[in-house]
Formats: sequence, structure tokens, C-alpha cells
Amino acid sequence: MFRDPPPPFRRRLRELGIVPGILAPGPLNAITDVSDVLVGHETLMVEPGLRTGVSAVLPHRGNVFEDRVPAGVAIGNGFGKFVGLTQVQELGELETPVLLTNTLSVAPAMQGLVEWTLARNPQALSVNAVVGETNDGVVNDIRARALTPEHALRALAAARGGPVQEGCVGAGTGTVAFGWKAGMGTSSRVLPASLGGHTVGVLAQVNFGGVLQVAGLPVGQRTGRHYLRGELDRGDADGSVVFILATDAPLSDRNLRRLAGRAFLGLGRTGSAMSSGSGDYALAFSTAQAVRRTPPRRGAPWTPLELPNDLVSPLFLAAIEAAEEAILNALCMAVPVTTHDGQQIEALPLELLADAWAAAGRGRPGQG
Amino acid sequence: MFRDPPPPFRRRLRELGIVPGILAPGPLNAITDVSDVLVGHETLMVEPGLRTGVSAVLPHRGNVFEDRVPAGVAIGNGFGKFVGLTQVQELGELETPVLLTNTLSVAPAMQGLVEWTLARNPQALSVNAVVGETNDGVVNDIRARALTPEHALRALAAARGGPVQEGCVGAGTGTVAFGWKAGMGTSSRVLPASLGGHTVGVLAQVNFGGVLQVAGLPVGQRTGRHYLRGELDRGDADGSVVFILATDAPLSDRNLRRLAGRAFLGLGRTGSAMSSGSGDYALAFSTAQAVRRTPPRRGAPWTPLELPNDLVSPLFLAAIEAAEEAILNALCMAVPVTTHDGQQIEALPLELLADAWAAAGRGRPGQG
Amino acid sequence: MFRDPPPPFRRRLRELGIVPGILAPGPLNAITDVSDVLVGHETLMVEPGLRTGVSAVLPHRGNVFEDRVPAGVAIGNGFGKFVGLTQVQELGELETPVLLTNTLSVAPAMQGLVEWTLARNPQALSVNAVVGETNDGVVNDIRARALTPEHALRALAAARGGPVQEGCVGAGTGTVAFGWKAGMGTSSRVLPASLGGHTVGVLAQVNFGGVLQVAGLPVGQRTGRHYLRGELDRGDADGSVVFILATDAPLSDRNLRRLAGRAFLGLGRTGSAMSSGSGDYALAFSTAQAVRRTPPRRGAPWTPLELPNDLVSPLFLAAIEAAEEAILNALCMAVPVTTHDGQQIEALPLELLADAWAAAGRGRPGQG
Amino acid sequence: MFRDPPPPFRRRLRELGIVPGILAPGPLNAITDVSDVLVGHETLMVEPGLRTGVSAVLPHRGNVFEDRVPAGVAIGNGFGKFVGLTQVQELGELETPVLLTNTLSVAPAMQGLVEWTLARNPQALSVNAVVGETNDGVVNDIRARALTPEHALRALAAARGGPVQEGCVGAGTGTVAFGWKAGMGTSSRVLPASLGGHTVGVLAQVNFGGVLQVAGLPVGQRTGRHYLRGELDRGDADGSVVFILATDAPLSDRNLRRLAGRAFLGLGRTGSAMSSGSGDYALAFSTAQAVRRTPPRRGAPWTPLELPNDLVSPLFLAAIEAAEEAILNALCMAVPVTTHDGQQIEALPLELLADAWAAAGRGRPGQG
Repeated sequence: MFRDPPPPFRRRLRELGIVPGILAPGPLNAITDVSDVLVGHETLMVEPGLRTGVSAVLPHRGNVFEDRVPAGVAIGNGFGKFVGLTQVQELGELETPVLLTNTLSVAPAMQGLVEWTLARNPQALSVNAVVGETNDGVVNDIRARALTPEHALRALAAARGGPVQEGCVGAGTGTVAFGWKAGMGTSSRVLPASLGGHTVGVLAQVNFGGVLQVAGLPVGQRTGRHYLRGELDRGDADGSVVFILATDAPLSDRNLRRLAGRAFLGLGRTGSAMSSGSGDYALAFSTAQAVRRTPPRRGAPWTPLELPNDLVSPLFLAAIEAAEEAILNALCMAVPVTTHDGQQIEALPLELLADAWAAAGRGRPGQG
Repeated sequence: MFRDPPPPFRRRLRELGIVPGILAPGPLNAITDVSDVLVGHETLMVEPGLRTGVSAVLPHRGNVFEDRVPAGVAIGNGFGKFVGLTQVQELGELETPVLLTNTLSVAPAMQGLVEWTLARNPQALSVNAVVGETNDGVVNDIRARALTPEHALRALAAARGGPVQEGCVGAGTGTVAFGWKAGMGTSSRVLPASLGGHTVGVLAQVNFGGVLQVAGLPVGQRTGRHYLRGELDRGDADGSVVFILATDAPLSDRNLRRLAGRAFLGLGRTGSAMSSGSGDYALAFSTAQAVRRTPPRRGAPWTPLELPNDLVSPLFLAAIEAAEEAILNALCMAVPVTTHDGQQIEALPLELLADAWAAAGRGRPGQG
Repeated sequence: MFRDPPPPFRRRLRELGIVPGILAPGPLNAITDVSDVLVGHETLMVEPGLRTGVSAVLPHRGNVFEDRVPAGVAIGNGFGKFVGLTQVQELGELETPVLLTNTLSVAPAMQGLVEWTLARNPQALSVNAVVGETNDGVVNDIRARALTPEHALRALAAARGGPVQEGCVGAGTGTVAFGWKAGMGTSSRVLPASLGGHTVGVLAQVNFGGVLQVAGLPVGQRTGRHYLRGELDRGDADGSVVFILATDAPLSDRNLRRLAGRAFLGLGRTGSAMSSGSGDYALAFSTAQAVRRTPPRRGAPWTPLELPNDLVSPLFLAAIEAAEEAILNALCMAVPVTTHDGQQIEALPLELLADAWAAAGRGRPGQG
Repeated sequence: MFRDPPPPFRRRLRELGIVPGILAPGPLNAITDVSDVLVGHETLMVEPGLRTGVSAVLPHRGNVFEDRVPAGVAIGNGFGKFVGLTQVQELGELETPVLLTNTLSVAPAMQGLVEWTLARNPQALSVNAVVGETNDGVVNDIRARALTPEHALRALAAARGGPVQEGCVGAGTGTVAFGWKAGMGTSSRVLPASLGGHTVGVLAQVNFGGVLQVAGLPVGQRTGRHYLRGELDRGDADGSVVFILATDAPLSDRNLRRLAGRAFLGLGRTGSAMSSGSGDYALAFSTAQAVRRTPPRRGAPWTPLELPNDLVSPLFLAAIEAAEEAILNALCMAVPVTTHDGQQIEALPLELLADAWAAAGRGRPGQG
């Protein structure tokens, strides 16, 4: 089996001393800081030129088809093949885990997710499989469509809590952003107890362009590697990003839809150009037991304990910050790859970030 | 191979003398009255209990991925797994044919449609496959998931103009509506020359419930077979309906979205209860050369010749009427089936319709 | 003061023996069958040619700005000036009564509603006034804009429970539908106890066209008075309809949005052409205490007792039927008027309906 | 008449040497760089405590009701009273100028705009007045509702091309953002000829909160004046922002809707928290003759010359950058005010910005 050269040592953004935003992350600074949430990756990195994969997010360890979680969706730019959205929008709930993969492998991933759900639910006759994607065709030989339903099942089986692998794994194996190798990234925020104490976590599949800004640093401009540079390539910024947001705050599906939409402000902060060809989606769910739609609740009036509109705003800022940092973590943790047609995609030089941060006189939060 | 007993002789609604609406149908009273449109069915009717299939609608004979057609989408109730909608909404165009199938077979149909498109477009790295579905699990052993990508390819290969098969074929093989066997149905309307002379055609996958009304006749009430009858079965009306609308009128994607939405008024006229579990979708496209997005038009400013808002209303009435009649044709042309678990689903008795029409003193259009 | 000739005796649809649908209406067959709901009309019918007004719907007798009700919105065709919708969509709640008036008088009605709310809430700095409209310019000298904020205040002050005036009152004073004088109409449905026993009521401002169908009877075709008749007037069907739906079922804002959308199926059953120039809107709210957003609930997590998705479908059928009958009641109760430019708009002849019903062999529900 | 103390000398962002983004602004760096666009302000600054106004944007000098322009709308957070949106969404066009004012003065502004339009169009029976707002109640005695329809007419009459007044004028007289006095702001971008050469201009009514970031500089953190600071005030970030975008690129209404949505990425770059109580709206229109909907075009098929999807992305980046800079210009040009209840709202110290820019080692574009 072919292997890319050993990756240089990579670090997450905060490990470089760079701190975006004002709110504190959770212990793992990951979507898995939201208790119950599990993440699994299945990575395909085989000769000749297959660099792709599938990632799974499970809202909890139980039977998601039975113990449904409320969910909401926001679409920044709908040039994408995200499957399962209209039912989430109509019913306000998620009945399967969420898979992410590449553009041409949505069907096998969906097939795997349907199989997985049917196997666990012998009475099920209808399954709303939720599968997002971005296009890794620059790196990956996407037309080979090497991904099978079995890969999806493996990602689901691999799902666990704890630290989340980032960079070139799972659905991020072949993604590129701002001209650098990217991948999967994650981050979280925990609100102070006085604001409810809830956690918001984000997992992002990062594969888009624009003019990179890192915690306010004009990295795209400094490196000269950015969208519309030289006015040569109009399509440079195409690609897409998918955000999965989880929270333990007891939100209604409507407020989860609103929470999801905030991811795009975090996206804006990184310098995205949200170009026409970018499929930019966000899906948010709540793991709170108080709003979970378990079977007895689905057949009779019941009483969710929900946060009212007046209390959701701090969660919105948490979503913005976690979305921004998830994107940056994907860039920081990704390693260089050779594309299916033999080109090198470099990783974002971390020393460049650390130097820029220092040169800008930035320090710890509160110290600016 | 098992076979259901020979079907009784079935007729389309107008062949019974029943005339819904005021506008005249096209020569075939089918979606294929819109020139260029092709329809193909692939039917699975094999022991033990497989009664399903896939239907294909092609906007034209050419390379749809290259010669795209403008399109719009309307969602009546989003409890469904319709694939490909967000990109149609974002870009206002269709880049593949549309497939219809059963709820648990969307993935293989999508797989087939992606393969079909990649094979015809060696440079394509992104394909927005459009696949709708309804749940035929009452009749069909849906969990067996017998449908494969090859079936989808066969439906695509079978697509042709001319008369369209209705009833228990393709994606309608296992569908049920208002407690009767249903299936695929089609109808069309042609506007008089003074109103533009354009044609609107509808193909419907009919699989829902309510209180059946046929051209105003209270058939559901008379037969006593209807939703909430006896207050026994709340889920009776679940099921879904998908409408594909085609027109040769040069409409913008926005006006196609509006046209699509009118199908639900036709749905209302048949007595649909649009229950929570019903996935009710409509997708409309235009075949007019003037608005077709062929490659040179995609890379430079170009000049579609579009109908303005002020001229689209007669097309809306055409869509309402054709949607209503497509549903009724599906019921009229369907034949009885034995379900996968051995029950009989009857066909709507045609003599009942003809008698009711006569008893109500209804006659030809204009004579009321 | 000028007066039109004394109206002929008018009756509601059911008083003619005509029964649309299968569900039973409430005691008043009116939106006020939903306990707490109040309706008020203020009618302007003065020389020369002013035939307009304003109608008010209050979800309850209390301070609506404080004791908010969950609400949802559906838009059939957005050619209208309905004010206040985006905030209802975002927050899922109503904080003022709803006013209906004519197209060019939305601003003074809004002004009145803002004043009314500020007067009752000395701390309020933001008011989301909700005002709908249709265009009564055929009958009314609409450009004279005779309506003032005081008229709106009078409609609010006049609001009460009990029987609701229909026909040429309030916002229906100058409306026309299907070529006949129309106006305000109302209807309700009560579900059997086994389905929850909840009530759905509809108030409609009826001002649109198409091909009139009355409980399935092809009245438009028989009278020859319908849209596209003679292919002369493409704009014939323009006008608009606004539905206000109330229910005592404890629905979430999302399910209220879905409920609102069902009104358009009832609209379809009456023969609407939903033409391009028609502004067709529906707003639904729940009066249930369990979901009401009173102040302590707005500042802390709270527990609504909501109907789950699985139980809402019978309410949907109730909304469809009540919307249909509300439209028909508006036509049945309206009286002939002289328009501002001296034309006569006739009322729908009631004997025609009764005769058609008898001729069609229709009887009581259950007897079909 | 009372007057605030003379303002300190204020400068626009670029006059401080600070350059956000990579694209070049137009000659005026204003929405009026889009030829034909006119802007007018009417300012109310009178004792006791009235600090409000109304601003008008006209897409061209002609009769907008006749020579309509295509338009699209995006809603970031719908907690607002923006009037006229659903018709813009349905028909894809603007038939009046756009007014901006305060939350409680939408009705009189709408009244003025209806009058203005009726006076110029003797046959008009329906007017879709478009009026946006934000809440200036911190500064202005908003409950006094001092604004009248005449003020709106004066803003319309004052509209002209050329440089646009910014800061505390018109609808920005009483607005606050990030804890500093804000107001109206504008900016523009011109694409290089190789990318079409089109201009995008933005006018913003700036009245929201979050954690201020200026061209990437962490100003909010450094000053310690930001949302959630000390966890004291959850509502700190409420307020709202309205963006009006104009372009001379010949875009369809769908692509104008997409363009409008990009303003929110610029909003994200400034550090907005898009809190629950913020009404964040964007409306975009095109002034291009090729897509203008003049009367003959409204009654017959016609041929707009439109940019295809494949060419719109650079305009999207232009919208992002111009939206960001318009917000920053509003802050830079605003002057301190005394609020209606005697508090002082300071202006953002410009030397702080200049110093931060220098300290961060930032220079001219291209030099990072």
C-alpha cells in the first residue's frame, strides 16, 4: 500500500497559543464535550489516488431511531447533495446518526446508514438517513467511487466519545481549504454557569476557499494564497463546508435551526467567500433528555423542558466561535498529501500562524 | 414467477366520461405532451411479495448534465427522502433526470443515476442526482430492498415519449391511495393560443389518503372508505405523493417553483388530508430552448426569453387541473394486488365512478 | 349616508343543507368555537364609494403582548403586504392581535395596532404588529385610503366571542370572489374525543378567483362565471385570501406552521386558481394554556405540554375542511353591492346552490 | 433646539489607513458607486430626546413602480418588522424605493411611501412598500413616535447620488453597536474588468452587538467592551442590522437573493453575535437595464441578459467585503450622543483603531 511521506508534527490552534473568541472551550475542545455524542471515522487512503472516507456523528449511544433528538438545519449555500434535510425540517428531529463523505459517495453511505438502522429496528419501514458531503475531487480520485456501504458501517462502529481525530481522516481525508490541505476539525464552547452552563460542540468537514483569516490574522493576504489572487481562477473558492452542531441545552427544533445558522458567521470570520459552487450546510441537534423524543412521548402529549427564546443568545455566540475554531483546527491538523494526479497539497505552515500571532501582539483572551 | 390474477379491464378517468376541470388536455393527456419529455418504468413484481419499481423522467433526449433545464421545487409536507432538492433550489436547475422509487431504495436509485451521469460525462466530478420516493411498504416487502442500481438504469434506458403507462408500474407498483390500489398517473393541459398555447404535464406517484373526491364527486363518503372513518386509524392517510411537472413555457426557475406549488391545490381537490406522515413534493421544469442552460450560456451572460410574472397564471390553473387528474388516473388504471403479507388491495371500482357522475347529472365541460 | 338596497335574505352554507367534509363543526361553526378567541369588525360603507373596513382577531382577552401564543405562518402565494410575518417565523409566537384590512390601508391599521399595544404595555419598546390584507379595489375606492388608525382601534374594541358576523363586514366589506360579492367567512371543526377533542377554527378574508366548486358541486362551470372563461381576462382570478386559524390543541410553533399550510388544500377544494397576483397567506395560533408564553416562561426553561407529530394529522383535516367552509360561508353571507364606480356586484344565488346539491343527490354526511 | 456638543472630527475607516478585504472600492466607496442609486436621509434630532430618522434608497431616478428592478432578500435573524418582503420573494422585484427607520415608526414610513407611489402612479391600486427598521430605543425616545409620513417624503425627496452621509443621520441617528454610537454606513467594491467589472454597493443601518473585530483587529477584546463581558447582560448584543445591497451586474432575482445572503458573512467578520433579539435582514437589487422589468417587458415574453451561476462568485466576495466595511464606516463616522434619558453613548475612539492597526503590523493590501 502506498503511503504519503510521514507527516510533519501538527498541532491544534490553541496549542500554538492562538485563541479565537472570548468563550472557554470544553475539556476536549471537541463536539464530544457534549455528553453522549460519539464520532467515528473510516479513512480510505490507498493507491492509486484514493484519498477519501466517511465520518459518523451519533447523538447518543442508544437507538437513535427510537430515541430521537430534536434537530434543525440551516443552508448557507445549497450547492450540495446533503440527504435527509426536508424531513428534519418538517418534523424537527433526527432519527439516524449523521454521516459525512464525498460528493459521489452519498448513495453508498446512505445505503449503509439505512442498513444499520433497519438492522437495529426490525419494525422500521421508513428511514430518514442523513448524509452530508463535500467534494474531495482535487485530492481523491472521486470518480472511482471506492467507498462502499461497508465503509459507512465501519465509521458507525468506530464511533466513540473522547478526543476526536482531526485533519486527514474520514470525510476530511481528501479535502482542501484556502489552497491548503484541510480535513475534519472540531471545537466546543462551554457557557458559564450564570448563563446556563451548557456546551455547544461543532464538527466540521472543511473544504472551501476565500481569503484565510485566523483569529483575525490576515494569513491569506500575507501568504498571497487566496481567492481571486491574480484574478486567474474564479472557481478557486469552491468546495463546501458541512457543520454538525451538538448541544446539551434543551432547545426546541426551531431554536436548533437558529443555532445551526450561526455557524455561518463563524465561517465568515475565517474568510470564506461562500462562492456559488460551495455547498455550505449546518445541522444542529440537542442531546438533552428533556427534549428527546422517546417512544411514549411520540404517542401522547408531553412536556419538553425548553429554553425560551430569551435565553438562547449566549449559545449562538458559542456556536459562532466553535464553528470558526473547528475550521481552523482542521487546517492546523491536516498533513500534506499527494493528489490522485500527482500534485502536492501543502499543509498550512504552523510557524507562520504562531509568528503572525506574536507579531500582531496578540495574547491570551482578556489580554487581547 | 408468481403473478397476481389477471387485472380487470381498466380505463382512464376521461374514458369513463368524467371530465375534471375546464382546460383541455393534450393529445396524450400525459406529461409526454410536453415535447422532449421521456418517461420510463422498471417494475419489480416477483415472489415473494416484491411489488415495487422505479420510474424515470427525462426532460429531454440530450445530455441533461450539459443541457440543463431550469427547475423549481415546492414541498407540501416534507416527511420524505427526496434527494437533490437543495441544489435545485440554489441553482434553479436540473442536471440529471428525475427518478422515483420506494422509500428504502433511494440510495440504489441514486447510485444508478450517478453512474448513468458519470458514464455520459467523463469530466464530471459532481452530480446532483434527483430521486423522489413514496413508501410502498403496505404492498411491497420494502425491507427486502430488492431494487438495485441496475433497475434504475433500466428505467432510464426504457424512457420514451408517447403514451405513458399508468397504474401498477414502476414506482407505482406498490402504492395505495384512499384505501384503494393506486400507482403512477399522468395528465396534461394545453392552453389556448390566446393564452400562449403552452402545455403543462404532470406525472404523479400516488400513495396517500384522505376522503376521496373525484372531479367533485364525494366518492370517499359514499363508499365509507376514508380517513378517520370510525376514528380507528389515525395513520390511514399517511403515504405521500410526488409530482413531476413539465412545461414547454419558458419560465424562470422562480416561476417554476411557483408552478410546482400549484400541484398541491390539485391534491387538495382529490380530498388529500396531507397528514403528518405524508411526504408531498412537487418538482417542475421547463423544456423550452429559450431558457435551457447549455454550456456556452453557463460561462457568459446570456439572454433567456422568459414569461413575465403577469403571464403565468393560466399555467398555474393548468398545473392544478393536471395534478388532480394525474392522481385520479393513477387510481383508475391501477389493478388489484396481493400484498407481501397476503392481503388483497382492491382497485377503485370504475362503475362506481361512472354511476356517481351520471347520478350527479354531470356532463361534458361547458355543460357542467 | 348612502346605503345599498336592502340585502336579500342570506344564509350560511349549512343552513342550505349543504355539508362539506366529514368532520363536525363546533356549536357556532366559527373561529370563536376555539375558546378565548375574539373577533371584531369595523365597517366603512359611506358615500362616495367607500366600501372597506378592518377586522380584528384576538387570541385571548388578556394582554397578548405579555401572554404570547405560539404561532406559525404559511404562504401560498406571496403577492401581498402581510406585515409582521418574519418575526412570527423566527420566534414562533404572536405578540399582538391580528388585523385584516385592504391593501392600501395596512399602514394605518399597523399604526393603530402599535398604539393599542403601547398603551397597554408602558415598557414596550418593540411591537411586532401583524396585519394582513387583500385588495378590495374593485368595489372600494381604495386610493381614497379612508381607513385610519382609529378604525383599527374600533375593530379591536369591538372584538368579542360568540357568533361572528360574515359577509360584507370589516375587512370583507369590499371583497369579491369568483365574480360574486364575497367577504369575511368563518367555520370550525371539533375532533371526536378519541382523537383529542380539540377544535380548529378559521376566519377567512375571501377575495380571489378560479372556477368555483361548492362542496364538490361544479358551480363555476354551471354558471359559466369563472376564470379564463372566454379566454378574455387573464387577471380575473387575482385578489387574495387570508386565513387566520385558531386551535385549542397544544401545538408547537412548527406544527402550527404545518396546520396553517393545510388551509391551502381547503382553498384548492373551492376551485381557486391561485393566480400570480393573489396574496394567499395563512397564520395559525394555539390558545392552549400549556403552550402559552407568559412572562415567567420567557425568562427560564419551561415545560410546554405539546402534541407530538404523531397526533397532529386529524387537526390537519379539520383545518382543510374549516378553511373550505369559511370561504363558502363568506360567499353565502355576502350581499350585493354597488362599486365605487357604479357597477353592481351580485351575490351568489343561494337557490342555485341548494338546487345543485339536490340535483346531485347529495345528502347528509354519511349518506353522501 | 437642543444640540449635542460638537462632534469630534471623524473619519471613515480607510482614512485611518485601515483596509479591510482584498477588493478595491469604487470612487466613493459607497452604495452610490452603483450608477443610478440615490440615497436620502431625514434626521430628527430635537429635544426632548428625539434622536431618530428615516433613510431612503432609490434604485434609480425613474418611476420605480413602473420600471421595476429585480430583487432578492435574505434573513439572518427575523426578529424585525421589515415590511414588504414576501412580495419581493414571490415576484423577485422591487416596485418602490426602500426606506429604513426605527422599529415603532415603520407604519408612518410605510404610509409615506405608499402616498409617494400613489401620487406618481394614478392608476396604482396596489403598492408593495418596502420598509426596514432597527430599534433605536436606547438613544431615542422611541415610544414618542415622532416620525411622520412627511419625514419619509422628505427623505425620498432628499435622495441623490454622490457621497453618502454616514454616522448619526437618517435611520442611523439613534443606533448603537458594540456599545458604541453607530449609525448609517456604506461601502462598495468594484471587480476588475477580467471578472466583469461590476460594482457592488452596500448601505447598512448598524445597531447590533457582539465582540467587535475591525479588519481582523480584536478591538472588542482589547477595550473590554463586548457582549457577555462579566456575564452580566445577556441582551447586550440585541439590536439589529439592515443591509441594502445594490449592483449593476445583471443578476436574476435568485442570484440577488444569494448576493444578499453574503452580507451576513461580512457581519460575522465584524464580530456580531447575531443574538435572538437582533433583526438581521439583507435586500439586494440590480440596476442593470438588461434585467429591469419595464412595462412592455411585464406583458410579454422578454429577454433579460443575465449572469449565469458560474460567474457570480466574485460578486459574492464583493458583497462580503462591502458589508463588513459599511458596518465599520458607521462606527467610525458616528459621533457621541446623549440619550433620551441623559446617558452618554461614546463614539468608537479612532486613534484606538489606528494604533491597533499599526501595532499589528498591518499595511496596505497585498502587503498584508
